[in-house]
Amino acid sequence: MKAHLLSNKSVKQIEIVKVKDNNSLPCTDDISVEEPLEIRISYEVAGKKEHKNISVTMRTPGNDRELAVGFLFTEGIISSRQQIKNVYSPEAECSRNSDNIVIVELIEDFVPELMKTERNFYTTSSCGVCGKGSIESIRTVSPFLHQEKEDIIISLETLYQLSEKLKSFQNNFSATGGIHASGIFDVNGNLLALREDVGRHNALDKLIGHTLFTGLLPLNDTILVLSGRASFELIQKAAMAGITIVTAIGAPSSLAVDLAKEFDITLIGFLRDNRFNIYHSGSCFKIENLL
Amino acid sequence: MKAHLLSNKSVKQIEIVKVKDNNSLPCTDDISVEEPLEIRISYEVAGKKEHKNISVTMRTPGNDRELAVGFLFTEGIISSRQQIKNVYSPEAECSRNSDNIVIVELIEDFVPELMKTERNFYTTSSCGVCGKGSIESIRTVSPFLHQEKEDIIISLETLYQLSEKLKSFQNNFSATGGIHASGIFDVNGNLLALREDVGRHNALDKLIGHTLFTGLLPLNDTILVLSGRASFELIQKAAMAGITIVTAIGAPSSLAVDLAKEFDITLIGFLRDNRFNIYHSGSCFKIENLL
Repeated sequence: MKAHLLSNKSVKQIEIVKVKDNNSLPCTDDISVEEPLEIRISYEVAGKKEHKNISVTMRTPGNDRELAVGFLFTEGIISSRQQIKNVYSPEAECSRNSDNIVIVELIEDFVPELMKTERNFYTTSSCGVCGKGSIESIRTVSPFLHQEKEDIIISLETLYQLSEKLKSFQNNFSATGGIHASGIFDVNGNLLALREDVGRHNALDKLIGHTLFTGLLPLNDTILVLSGRASFELIQKAAMAGITIVTAIGAPSSLAVDLAKEFDITLIGFLRDNRFNIYHSGSCFKIENLL
Repeated sequence: MKAHLLSNKSVKQIEIVKVKDNNSLPCTDDISVEEPLEIRISYEVAGKKEHKNISVTMRTPGNDRELAVGFLFTEGIISSRQQIKNVYSPEAECSRNSDNIVIVELIEDFVPELMKTERNFYTTSSCGVCGKGSIESIRTVSPFLHQEKEDIIISLETLYQLSEKLKSFQNNFSATGGIHASGIFDVNGNLLALREDVGRHNALDKLIGHTLFTGLLPLNDTILVLSGRASFELIQKAAMAGITIVTAIGAPSSLAVDLAKEFDITLIGFLRDNRFNIYHSGSCFKIENLL
């Protein structure tokens, strides 16, 4: 299956000066594009059309509809693609940038869960600063957390190949050296989908938005591979999508580990071609050939 | 001058399983702590005390007062330490985590610029999606943007040593492998201050908060070194603090380069011990011995 990589507008050529030892050389270089995306929803309440600005995120252009829908899903504002009527950019509102606005139009009679949108879960729930309300929110809102789990057996070899595979599919990283990726693989290590962005959370929202559109959710029989570190926010998004195995090239944070334990998500960090660390081993997760 | 590194509560020891080749080994490992910090302000309007929750950010505990004050400064809500009466954590509100709340009490008769606090600049200003309003906001709000600039001459050797110096002072990174740093150095490459955090923007806010407390602002004769990539948000914060030279170990984004050009901030990326890329060379920035 072909990985969906970012389009040309996600990389920009600029004039720079390369310095090496004592020499300087003007040349052209590729950099990752970062631009704001405004996510809006429109919905009907009692026959009246309502519009609401949900978020502005700094993102790399490309897969914007997926990003908008993925964000709404991982924030618990929508829970299925059936709730979506249309996703589009508006007519130009200012001279150049209506591409930087995505409107998600919801079906009639569906009133979204807007209490949670003021900011992320942990800021609006009963005791955000404890983190407790946050975990409760995810437990309540995620449509997939209560699904029955089946054993997943993965070979060591498959795990060891994932970081190289992610890199090999990540075209924009090799061009710019400055972009995050999230990829999902099946249990045999075959890439199912990959998304890139300057923001690690956006890369994952794009990926989850893609799986929502294509009917792949829940992702309970896949392996999520993150190009960088694993923060609380990324595990939260993974939990929303029903992901049970998260692997990261970088380190996890303490709260990421806490959340992984709470939801029995396998969490692997510092994934390389011959080693990794297991921060939590899910109850249904087994590695073949491990002594 | 001693670098202020994070305290013990910023690193946590947990039980993990290290896997290498075919072997697994249970052991104890250090990870970076990530916890939410709620930033509040209190101020008086017409003799009446007002409280406002400004932001919740996922941060590594340590230097929280600096983070709160730095955030308020880089968001343009306060512009000097004279506007601050007191910075403290409240009495325990829930059983364990009043450490995760910082209240910045402002002096009487100072009414903060709260229009800008709903979110970051670019979301609330007139045309956030263009980015134009955002740049205008920084121009209006930054107390240091209109200062006269003097030539800054830096030797190649000094620049080439910065990335190693940042790493050598970054104790928590070597422990956990998962934490960002922001450091400021003088033009001879001496470290003035360094802060660490799981969030790159928090590390910079802590650093700027520290310089606000210690009277070092504006930072127009220092070099900022970022451990990771340079995004729009980081250049925005640097501009607010009057920083004119930003160097990053990682890549910059397109919007970071745009903003650096707009404010004539020297922007260097991919800084190593014998090479770097110049994305914008400020009009007052000179490198010694460069051919």
